[in-house]
Amino acid sequence: MRGKKLALGLSLMALLVFPALGVAADDVPKLTDDEWKLAKQTYFNRCAGCHGTLRKGATGPDLLPKKTRELGTEVIEAFITEGTGGGMPGFVKMGILTAQEANVMARFVQNDPVAPPEISLADMKDTWKILVPVDKRPKKPEHTRNWQNYFGVVLRDAGKVAIFDGDTKENLGEVPTGFAVHILRSGASGRYFYSIGRDGKATMIDLWTKTPTMVAEVKACSEARSIETSKYKGYEDKLAIIGCYWPPHFVILDGQTLEPKKIVSTRGYTVDTNEYHPEPRVAAIVPSHYTPEWALLIKEAGFLWMVDYSNIRDIRIKMIEGERFLHDGGWNATKRYFMAAANMKDTMVIFDTKLGKFVTKFKVGTKPHPGRGANWIDPKYGPVSGTVHLGEGMLSVWGSDPEKHPEHAWKVVRSIELKKGSGSLFLKTHPKSKHLWMDFPLNPEPSSHRSVCVLDITQPEKEPKCFDVGDHGRVVHFEYNKNGDEVWISVWDKIGEVVVYDDKTLKVKTVLKDLVTPTGHFNVYNTMKDIY
Amino acid sequence: MRGKKLALGLSLMALLVFPALGVAADDVPKLTDDEWKLAKQTYFNRCAGCHGTLRKGATGPDLLPKKTRELGTEVIEAFITEGTGGGMPGFVKMGILTAQEANVMARFVQNDPVAPPEISLADMKDTWKILVPVDKRPKKPEHTRNWQNYFGVVLRDAGKVAIFDGDTKENLGEVPTGFAVHILRSGASGRYFYSIGRDGKATMIDLWTKTPTMVAEVKACSEARSIETSKYKGYEDKLAIIGCYWPPHFVILDGQTLEPKKIVSTRGYTVDTNEYHPEPRVAAIVPSHYTPEWALLIKEAGFLWMVDYSNIRDIRIKMIEGERFLHDGGWNATKRYFMAAANMKDTMVIFDTKLGKFVTKFKVGTKPHPGRGANWIDPKYGPVSGTVHLGEGMLSVWGSDPEKHPEHAWKVVRSIELKKGSGSLFLKTHPKSKHLWMDFPLNPEPSSHRSVCVLDITQPEKEPKCFDVGDHGRVVHFEYNKNGDEVWISVWDKIGEVVVYDDKTLKVKTVLKDLVTPTGHFNVYNTMKDIY
Repeated sequence: MRGKKLALGLSLMALLVFPALGVAADDVPKLTDDEWKLAKQTYFNRCAGCHGTLRKGATGPDLLPKKTRELGTEVIEAFITEGTGGGMPGFVKMGILTAQEANVMARFVQNDPVAPPEISLADMKDTWKILVPVDKRPKKPEHTRNWQNYFGVVLRDAGKVAIFDGDTKENLGEVPTGFAVHILRSGASGRYFYSIGRDGKATMIDLWTKTPTMVAEVKACSEARSIETSKYKGYEDKLAIIGCYWPPHFVILDGQTLEPKKIVSTRGYTVDTNEYHPEPRVAAIVPSHYTPEWALLIKEAGFLWMVDYSNIRDIRIKMIEGERFLHDGGWNATKRYFMAAANMKDTMVIFDTKLGKFVTKFKVGTKPHPGRGANWIDPKYGPVSGTVHLGEGMLSVWGSDPEKHPEHAWKVVRSIELKKGSGSLFLKTHPKSKHLWMDFPLNPEPSSHRSVCVLDITQPEKEPKCFDVGDHGRVVHFEYNKNGDEVWISVWDKIGEVVVYDDKTLKVKTVLKDLVTPTGHFNVYNTMKDIY
Repeated sequence: MRGKKLALGLSLMALLVFPALGVAADDVPKLTDDEWKLAKQTYFNRCAGCHGTLRKGATGPDLLPKKTRELGTEVIEAFITEGTGGGMPGFVKMGILTAQEANVMARFVQNDPVAPPEISLADMKDTWKILVPVDKRPKKPEHTRNWQNYFGVVLRDAGKVAIFDGDTKENLGEVPTGFAVHILRSGASGRYFYSIGRDGKATMIDLWTKTPTMVAEVKACSEARSIETSKYKGYEDKLAIIGCYWPPHFVILDGQTLEPKKIVSTRGYTVDTNEYHPEPRVAAIVPSHYTPEWALLIKEAGFLWMVDYSNIRDIRIKMIEGERFLHDGGWNATKRYFMAAANMKDTMVIFDTKLGKFVTKFKVGTKPHPGRGANWIDPKYGPVSGTVHLGEGMLSVWGSDPEKHPEHAWKVVRSIELKKGSGSLFLKTHPKSKHLWMDFPLNPEPSSHRSVCVLDITQPEKEPKCFDVGDHGRVVHFEYNKNGDEVWISVWDKIGEVVVYDDKTLKVKTVLKDLVTPTGHFNVYNTMKDIY
């Protein structure tokens, strides 16, 4: 009975939830060596992020053999082809995978997961390159440009970052980086951009040279999502940290050279069931401005780790219980509280980083995904913060000023429907702006994923304005310029662009064209100061 | 050529060091189901302690298939039969294993190591029993005995602990515990004995009842060596901690009921090579008297972890770099400095637990094994501490008062030869004593392992007095009574005894007979106050 065709849609979801309904596998499908190689790379590129390297599940459900063998090849192929209502993209339908590749993947995931190799400090050092030694770098900017208003734009599939002059909108150069850079961070001084690829390669870009220059690189993981720097007084630009997805660990590096200095494993027990998990991945990292610490989300375990970097020989870590699947988040306006989304739990978790304690958690909508989030003043509730959602078209807004507005703190005060539907990844505002921008890049409908919605935060009862940004691709991610009067938005396509809006008038100021798959983009000043 | 007989002795050692000299295995020897079962249990009982559950090596060398297959069955059999000069016992020669069992083990270790199952908090709770609830326990002692001078004597192979009245020398009862209890600890109040078996079972014994009563038990690991309690002011008897060998983790428990509350994994990177280690085991644990912390030796990783128990929800850990293979050790006289032996590195490592920092490390003799160690006043060097050694017949003495005698601090000031040779496990003195006692239980010669040596610490230049304690078995471990004028010593044999000496005259006061394999023995008062 294996491989029986089933109607797609709800039946597929039911199968994932009730795998016992599936059909039993007689044996495990074999793959040729070439298929195995393809499947491993494809799994890394497309699947591991949500389902985990060891397939134990995270943002997506687990894909362990017990379940996948019951589902069988054809049913899994259908999932990969069509996607699900729960957030799984239809990879074949979207043209990302061929039908043949979907077949290979469907057979691959019925085999036992294999752990990728471990990586030691010596392995990392073998990949470490100083391209420009510290003493060969300029002591002051070699140009008169307003470099604190530079933007780094991730050119995802090109494995590059383009540096733009935010004043003149000139492309100053494209620097080779890791594959599909996930994030760029600025040090406390803003002089360097630190990038991290999904392949674990970190790159350090000097913005003081005539044209932006790669000065160092290192590969700290086989899969990664986060990089950050030491921003506390006395430690500015001294250290960097990379949070890995595989191996599950974090690495502390010299902030001037990217020399790897220290590895700490994040393998451990889950916060809720207290079972050993072989793969608790490091999701977002934020740098404390009050203490010499980084705050790390240990995703599958569900902890916030506050890592004290004042003495990395005798390192101190506070392991604060949170909630499973902590994925992304950022500071409230005072930068004392770290607000993190446990997306698969529809929950925001609040940590007091000053006291090193869990504060509270509360439900928002389905699969919140705030990115770094957004902070603004609500006319009725005072200082608030918010998130958009992967799983539904909604902006959730909560009070985030427990000192002066304790009555609203950590309570959802507004739930604003977004007509464009689900599939949001980011929202953004700026202390000088009255607008809050929201995207829908993972929505399957072009009319949604090509558009954004903008809320007037001074009139939150008024319906957000929604409009198309592109006529192709997917519109994703926002960044303000240093002055807070322009918003940069990516149109993510094979040949995409960045559209720059006037934040006051919501009119297009300029379009930066012919960029290969632009995704995240980061302004130096706002990133160094953690303004959002 | 596999299985070629080789002369024993140096050739065998050479093979372990240069496995390339070994003979190649054509295939991996098979075991029957019964042999497999026997081998797993025997490996756990006799091998895992030194070679590690995953056979990556620790106090003994690694036994990974690459090496063992090159050695082949007959060579490994010879090792198991004869032992080595490096500390490996001759298990067949000593009558512990049969020749047939040695053959099974030699084949077993050529197979790939298999990780034992993980243990979750729920698994632990399934084994947890409160035999006497807290509110059913007496509010004050039900007897007029001097219970602070009770002794707990481990009856190793009986899986029991005998409680003796140290004043009257009566055996007050034998309480069933885990297998081969490794250590007994007292809480800050001294009321309870907490025992930990090598099988990971912890048992709590109430000394206030008419006869000592087991009040709670739990199995927190499949293999363990350490248990301790919270001794800091305000936390007395509130919490307990178990350090596991497998799974590599520690568990925090309610100090009144042994309810498991929290598990933290110790898997991580080695301090020297910075490679991932799947099995960093928790060796000794000591309780800080200055802070609400426990100090844990993370053996294979080579770290001291200071675990703050003041908030176990948001736990804080200082991970202090030390040296690989930290195994045992204890406080200096001020209880500020934790002096730990990295036995396979012939090194003592000093940690400042007040500041949470590594202080220094220095070489002593071959394979130091201090147990908790010993502190005394040397006529020339002031406050000193010392260790005996597994690998040679020597007492190493170093200055341990950096505040008042910085010129001698953490320097070996005396190396005193012990004529009885190697194989020592313990040394002991008491603030009121002028004697330092040392044993030789792992020495192969009966004339050594049946004897002890005693140094007059007021005349350290004088040769230690050595004499036989038993005429059978192996003499092991020392404990003073509460007054510090008696020394209890075990004669470890199938039917063994505890010999009680007058510490002043070095004359036998009494012998406690007919005890099944007595090993460690612990006085309530000295254990609760960490007097050594």
